[in-house]
Amino acid sequence: MTGADREPVYRFGRGSEMARDASRVEAFSDAVIAIVLTLMAVELLAFDPDLPQDDGLAAVLMQEWRAYLAYVITFAIVGQVWLTHHNMWRYVRRVDQMLLVLNLLLLMFVAAIPFTADLLADNLRGTVRDQRLTAALYVGVVLGEALFFNLSWWWARRRGLLHPDLDPRLASAVARRFRLGPLLYLVAFAIVFIDPLLSLLAYLLLVGVYLVRGPGDLPPAGQEAPDTP
Amino acid sequence: MTGADREPVYRFGRGSEMARDASRVEAFSDAVIAIVLTLMAVELLAFDPDLPQDDGLAAVLMQEWRAYLAYVITFAIVGQVWLTHHNMWRYVRRVDQMLLVLNLLLLMFVAAIPFTADLLADNLRGTVRDQRLTAALYVGVVLGEALFFNLSWWWARRRGLLHPDLDPRLASAVARRFRLGPLLYLVAFAIVFIDPLLSLLAYLLLVGVYLVRGPGDLPPAGQEAPDTP
Amino acid sequence: MTGADREPVYRFGRGSEMARDASRVEAFSDAVIAIVLTLMAVELLAFDPDLPQDDGLAAVLMQEWRAYLAYVITFAIVGQVWLTHHNMWRYVRRVDQMLLVLNLLLLMFVAAIPFTADLLADNLRGTVRDQRLTAALYVGVVLGEALFFNLSWWWARRRGLLHPDLDPRLASAVARRFRLGPLLYLVAFAIVFIDPLLSLLAYLLLVGVYLVRGPGDLPPAGQEAPDTP
Amino acid sequence: MTGADREPVYRFGRGSEMARDASRVEAFSDAVIAIVLTLMAVELLAFDPDLPQDDGLAAVLMQEWRAYLAYVITFAIVGQVWLTHHNMWRYVRRVDQMLLVLNLLLLMFVAAIPFTADLLADNLRGTVRDQRLTAALYVGVVLGEALFFNLSWWWARRRGLLHPDLDPRLASAVARRFRLGPLLYLVAFAIVFIDPLLSLLAYLLLVGVYLVRGPGDLPPAGQEAPDTP
Repeated sequence: MTGADREPVYRFGRGSEMARDASRVEAFSDAVIAIVLTLMAVELLAFDPDLPQDDGLAAVLMQEWRAYLAYVITFAIVGQVWLTHHNMWRYVRRVDQMLLVLNLLLLMFVAAIPFTADLLADNLRGTVRDQRLTAALYVGVVLGEALFFNLSWWWARRRGLLHPDLDPRLASAVARRFRLGPLLYLVAFAIVFIDPLLSLLAYLLLVGVYLVRGPGDLPPAGQEAPDTP
Repeated sequence: MTGADREPVYRFGRGSEMARDASRVEAFSDAVIAIVLTLMAVELLAFDPDLPQDDGLAAVLMQEWRAYLAYVITFAIVGQVWLTHHNMWRYVRRVDQMLLVLNLLLLMFVAAIPFTADLLADNLRGTVRDQRLTAALYVGVVLGEALFFNLSWWWARRRGLLHPDLDPRLASAVARRFRLGPLLYLVAFAIVFIDPLLSLLAYLLLVGVYLVRGPGDLPPAGQEAPDTP
Repeated sequence: MTGADREPVYRFGRGSEMARDASRVEAFSDAVIAIVLTLMAVELLAFDPDLPQDDGLAAVLMQEWRAYLAYVITFAIVGQVWLTHHNMWRYVRRVDQMLLVLNLLLLMFVAAIPFTADLLADNLRGTVRDQRLTAALYVGVVLGEALFFNLSWWWARRRGLLHPDLDPRLASAVARRFRLGPLLYLVAFAIVFIDPLLSLLAYLLLVGVYLVRGPGDLPPAGQEAPDTP
Repeated sequence: MTGADREPVYRFGRGSEMARDASRVEAFSDAVIAIVLTLMAVELLAFDPDLPQDDGLAAVLMQEWRAYLAYVITFAIVGQVWLTHHNMWRYVRRVDQMLLVLNLLLLMFVAAIPFTADLLADNLRGTVRDQRLTAALYVGVVLGEALFFNLSWWWARRRGLLHPDLDPRLASAVARRFRLGPLLYLVAFAIVFIDPLLSLLAYLLLVGVYLVRGPGDLPPAGQEAPDTP
């Protein structure tokens, strides 16, 4: 934080101001993701008003298991978006206008998640028929996110916005992982044409792997692999 | 904050970056809890559209007292979740992927609170009959939270993610308290089979005790017990 | 921040950890207030579906002016709650369990604002008749907030949770102002029995005075009065 | 941060406390903007329940393209508000009561965006006829924002609340840009009387230019123009 203002600047704000910059981007993104997550919960868990309630609450809840499945799947996806964002932005030290725009475009896709989650739940319930289109929209949103994660990372690396102490090999590993994501999602999407439910399970599996390993392939804290072989 | 990078790291970010890490987890969790709390307020306090409004506003409000009771109960529970989260995470200095995942799973249960609160209000109003199932769902959500608080704390202790200056006896006290929570909640739940309203009151009592004492059994600031006898 | 750990502590965390504590309370409260504010906007500004739309959009908007008045009034009140919270908590350096509970109880009243704002709008529209009860609820919520602001400040002063450099005369001035608020609100409330609209205007006037002067009676930055006469 | 308390202060809090002040304003504004953005997404992307669903999901989605256009347009506008806020407040080092009030008034217009976005979507769908009034409301909200950005910046400069190291020429450049915004928006508004859709496209173009260049005319990080010719 100290002694980083070596050169004359038209625009001040290296060091601590810049750190506040990145923090603010994180806070704003966090707020969007948190609202998406909670609104999605409220929508998905609410009872379908068209369901008959004569059979008691237990029967209604039974009939709604598909909505709860959609909740778990979508929560996993939103959770993974947050984790990926967290794991990427912890390495970002400064921001510029383009990185902010790329992050906003990412959030535009994130904010569309409750919509697709609702479609997914309707689909699982059988209210809406067109399973392939639903899955296509779902995948479209996920691919949009993956795209802008890739672009953000690529831009931050190219413009030197990352932390100067970041190991270049780690930066490359993150980029490789970010590139891999869309490919895997496309495979999961292709399974839709075989069986929609299978496609969702493939998704969940992928997300689970991501959740456990993390996009930056971070070893557990306290056990960092040493830098040299 | 400075001079903490003594060892070679594959993954940089000890010290200030790590503190930002934990702050971000707190900020994200705060956002989720805040939205849950406010959405719950909006839902519970809204008038039941099926209620006759002929008798004037006072009569409607009288009929709605159960919804207001549900509001106070659920607010107490959500408030206690926030307090517990606050009191636990103030001791967390670093995060790893698994702690983030455990925290997300905790939030998955937190985000389901408006759903159970709505069920509770419907139940108190008599719109939905199945009181035992409602209470079971309510307790299920609360137990889920308690479970992931326990797992988070256990993991953070085991992996050395807590603040190095944290007194091990305090860490143990927190763990004991976290283990006690689910047990007490289960007792409150068992009372459902005697009387659902009594069960809720037992809950409120438990939450009240937690609110006053705090999960870490913290003495009031400025009066900390000295470390040695 | 440094050198504040003079005494043996069972509970660590003086200095920077404590500052993070207070920041987190602020962030959580901010999130609740922000959601209240935005949800209130969405509810109040939405069209009343019962209104005839035959006369074109302009006629509908004309008929809805009362909802917009309710929006401005409630926004002023929520805005003032945020300002008061901001101005009070900037002096808080440490938190204890009781202060957190008092803050949560304050937020319980804040989260009820969209409900009363909706009642107010219905009242102004003439959909709900009972103006005195509406005003009573409105004032009840505002008084609840004022009460817990008073209790928070009183507790924080008594327990030494405020910043050590805070001038005791400023602390007293804030307390005096906090005590004055409920009195003025009660006067505005009494006017309800003369004329409800007049009462709202009295409110708006009071809030306006608060907005311009600030609860801590803070002189404009850069022009601080010197400490001695 | 240290050693900044040189003069006697009635109101303490220069330095780190002040930085917390500005951070809190940012966090609160972020929360409001994030909620606006996400609620807007939920509202605009939800299906119009009056649409016939007989033709399958694809047909429904086709009919809804206007809502998606409204989503992209409004997202761009809200995104730009956030960027402008971010780019302005990064230079703010201290706050006073009036700046807080100006920021709250700005947020009052921001919180009205979902309302106007909904009107816009209804308009594009043809549900609401009065295109000129809709556009007028839309522009009114945008102009209100532009007005309070201008007032905030003017006040912060006049009262010396900006960072002391900020180049005065940059402060002037920001002010010039802020003044230009309303003029351009008024031109886009005038086009409404020729063709409403053309007006929206003009808007989108303006917002796009702002997104790429940024209100403070910031050169990309790492390529700052040197201070002297």
